[in-house]
Amino acid sequence: MKDQIPYKIFLEESELPKAWYNVRADMKNKPAPILNPATLQPVTVEDISPVFCEELAKQELDNDTKFVPIPQEILDFYKMNRPSPLVRAYYLEKMLGTPAHIYYKFEGNNTSGSHKLNSAIAQAYYAKKQGLKGVTTETGAGQWGTALSMACAYFDLDCKVYMVKVSYEQKPFRREVMRTYGASITPSPSDTTNIGRKMLEEFPGTDGSLGCAISEAVEAAVSTPGYRYVLGSVLSQVLLHQSIIGLETKTALDKYGIKPDIIIGCAGGGSNLGGLMAPFVGEKLRGESDVRILAVEPKSCPSLTRGKYLYDFCDTGRVCPMAKMYTLGHSFMPSANHAGGLRYHGMSTIISQLYEDGYLEAISVEQTSVFEAAQMFARTEGILPAPESSHAIRAAIDEALKCKESGEAKNIVFGLTGTGYYDLTAYKKYNDGEMTDYIPSDEEIANSLAKLPKVE
Amino acid sequence: MKDQIPYKIFLEESELPKAWYNVRADMKNKPAPILNPATLQPVTVEDISPVFCEELAKQELDNDTKFVPIPQEILDFYKMNRPSPLVRAYYLEKMLGTPAHIYYKFEGNNTSGSHKLNSAIAQAYYAKKQGLKGVTTETGAGQWGTALSMACAYFDLDCKVYMVKVSYEQKPFRREVMRTYGASITPSPSDTTNIGRKMLEEFPGTDGSLGCAISEAVEAAVSTPGYRYVLGSVLSQVLLHQSIIGLETKTALDKYGIKPDIIIGCAGGGSNLGGLMAPFVGEKLRGESDVRILAVEPKSCPSLTRGKYLYDFCDTGRVCPMAKMYTLGHSFMPSANHAGGLRYHGMSTIISQLYEDGYLEAISVEQTSVFEAAQMFARTEGILPAPESSHAIRAAIDEALKCKESGEAKNIVFGLTGTGYYDLTAYKKYNDGEMTDYIPSDEEIANSLAKLPKVE
Repeated sequence: MKDQIPYKIFLEESELPKAWYNVRADMKNKPAPILNPATLQPVTVEDISPVFCEELAKQELDNDTKFVPIPQEILDFYKMNRPSPLVRAYYLEKMLGTPAHIYYKFEGNNTSGSHKLNSAIAQAYYAKKQGLKGVTTETGAGQWGTALSMACAYFDLDCKVYMVKVSYEQKPFRREVMRTYGASITPSPSDTTNIGRKMLEEFPGTDGSLGCAISEAVEAAVSTPGYRYVLGSVLSQVLLHQSIIGLETKTALDKYGIKPDIIIGCAGGGSNLGGLMAPFVGEKLRGESDVRILAVEPKSCPSLTRGKYLYDFCDTGRVCPMAKMYTLGHSFMPSANHAGGLRYHGMSTIISQLYEDGYLEAISVEQTSVFEAAQMFARTEGILPAPESSHAIRAAIDEALKCKESGEAKNIVFGLTGTGYYDLTAYKKYNDGEMTDYIPSDEEIANSLAKLPKVE
Repeated sequence: MKDQIPYKIFLEESELPKAWYNVRADMKNKPAPILNPATLQPVTVEDISPVFCEELAKQELDNDTKFVPIPQEILDFYKMNRPSPLVRAYYLEKMLGTPAHIYYKFEGNNTSGSHKLNSAIAQAYYAKKQGLKGVTTETGAGQWGTALSMACAYFDLDCKVYMVKVSYEQKPFRREVMRTYGASITPSPSDTTNIGRKMLEEFPGTDGSLGCAISEAVEAAVSTPGYRYVLGSVLSQVLLHQSIIGLETKTALDKYGIKPDIIIGCAGGGSNLGGLMAPFVGEKLRGESDVRILAVEPKSCPSLTRGKYLYDFCDTGRVCPMAKMYTLGHSFMPSANHAGGLRYHGMSTIISQLYEDGYLEAISVEQTSVFEAAQMFARTEGILPAPESSHAIRAAIDEALKCKESGEAKNIVFGLTGTGYYDLTAYKKYNDGEMTDYIPSDEEIANSLAKLPKVE
């Protein structure tokens, strides 16, 4: 059988999923509703329509529609990079000497370098369909901003990106990719918004923060006619769009009769893990499968493994609605961690509820061991992985080594969300032996959680 | 028919070519022999074996073997990234409004970011098979060095890369990728070789040059037991390995019954164009086809379009053998051109002879128009192309626009050799409107050619 499975399983274009899968429809315990912070009442489509595109606002609050048809225009774009390959990690297996079969769904083979494009194109499409002129967003590491720039170029939409100032200065290449796709990039805080001007006045010379960039992007959207705000993770609509990752993975596994024993995904806000696991956790919810699902987070920002399941603000600037989620508190500042995409204080409400209900497990791993795994992977499988994705690689390697001890030929599937081509400052630290680990103290987390508003 | 051709034609792994094609076997006029500069006699395998691996030395001088079987170990590695996709440029065609059908063979979907890996793995394999400890090479822009680092990691060979000092300093990310794959990177000139020390003494603070880096790499190879020197372009062995690009392209076109009207490749040393066109020019040589083949070079370094067909040194340092080729003279310094991979003063002997005999055409294009095409391509096809590859994109777009005027539905095939993820300094210049063109004067070229040794 081993020889019959190709190195890369590419589905035909005709096998591209025609509908996204909304896992909420199969959840007995739905994710807790997001709340209007002023009234503490569940938000309505009308509440959030000034910020989000209308169709996306509807998707955000829709707990019932199981399959959402993917519009043809989005399918046409998906064909640029999809179906993405499911790769059998023969080289890695051989190096580890494991009887396990390792597979990874590779989402990084596009210029944005990650899975973010799957939701970016959907959000750009609905903005275009609504007749909008453009969208605003924030970006930290830059993967989301790049994906959105590409999507906006495709639909001829204006794209305003607020980029955390320190990243703007340290990642000029990311900025240039976005500009090549026609986006305008503003370092945040900026003097283009009230909140930005206020920050600059209070903290001259500040490096900026994701929280502030979100606030600026939202302000720019609501104060500019014809604009809406879009976001690349955490939201339920994003998990809906990202379900294409899991649907393709399942089709590819089914095609070769492979039954996965464990599905592994890195978890920051939850966009990748939520998408990858969607159809598999759906089977668990319906009692059709007992596949293990494993979320891997950094020890420096351990929302699932050390946070609490509480209502919290989604952003440090407190301009967004409140969500019930596993959180370290919106004022938690994860320091000294290069895996930019996993530095979020909370977790998708869907993943939080599923974790609370025991449908998935979570572990946290240290940064140096993550980069050790990244290097091993690069040298054997030939792809330089993103630091975020390398959290999943670490866990997959550890599971494969357990199989080596036990002699089990388990099927391990993980999400390789992206490439590390713009993360070489972090790789340099690792190569130079200067990378360190950071584990927040119990006190640090307790202090941050103590600042949460009481909501029940 | 249009709808039946997928966006990406992926061959099955079983369709991977099992042998490289040596176009020299079909050439009536063989490329002129390379000469020992001391004796001006054709070099023998014995002459060059202290520098090159023995099997590679044999391949270099073999004008007769038509098909060279690809060793299984290399085929196993090829499966990591091959067969590479042949992409139908539907989005670009639509934007141009052309009746032409445009296809590109995409060789950049791997961490080295280019086609260079095809020859790097072959050269590393033969070095390993010969029982060597390691190899040395030089790199400018860094694509070749990265590819070789990956290949050496795979075969557990030591890899010493001499990187032109200015690139070493300006491209720290490229350097870090190579280090992640275990290569050691030395800025050139360095104090590790005689020639390097001499250069540092004569020109303290020099930025280095490719010529000097080649000389250092060769010296390091011949003076270190168990090491040989390897090179990523120009050589006939490299074109042999790169023939896999063209062979796969032909298989994919044949599979869908597509007859190409024109094959387009960018041309620096000739590794990509030579590989892409190999089976197609073979058909022309055998009188079986009249497909047009078009080499595209930068106006700033126009060896085919403005150089002479003469014996010249392959390197500015004059340590390598002499070759009869279209050349601007080994002392020609192409300035102000960001397309690093096309900054070579000469051209592969195979391509030079075929051009002399009328089997291919050549044009040169200006850098600003190349980046205009690159941006157009990025925004429609979603891939940020390497500046080198974008020379071919420019020509393909121009041919497609001619078809728009004439109403012809020609099949245009071009080589997309790589991605531009590490070329964003150049993109920034273009985005900022600060990019300029440079066209050398007739006098400049004549002066450089006047320095050539007289050989007949």
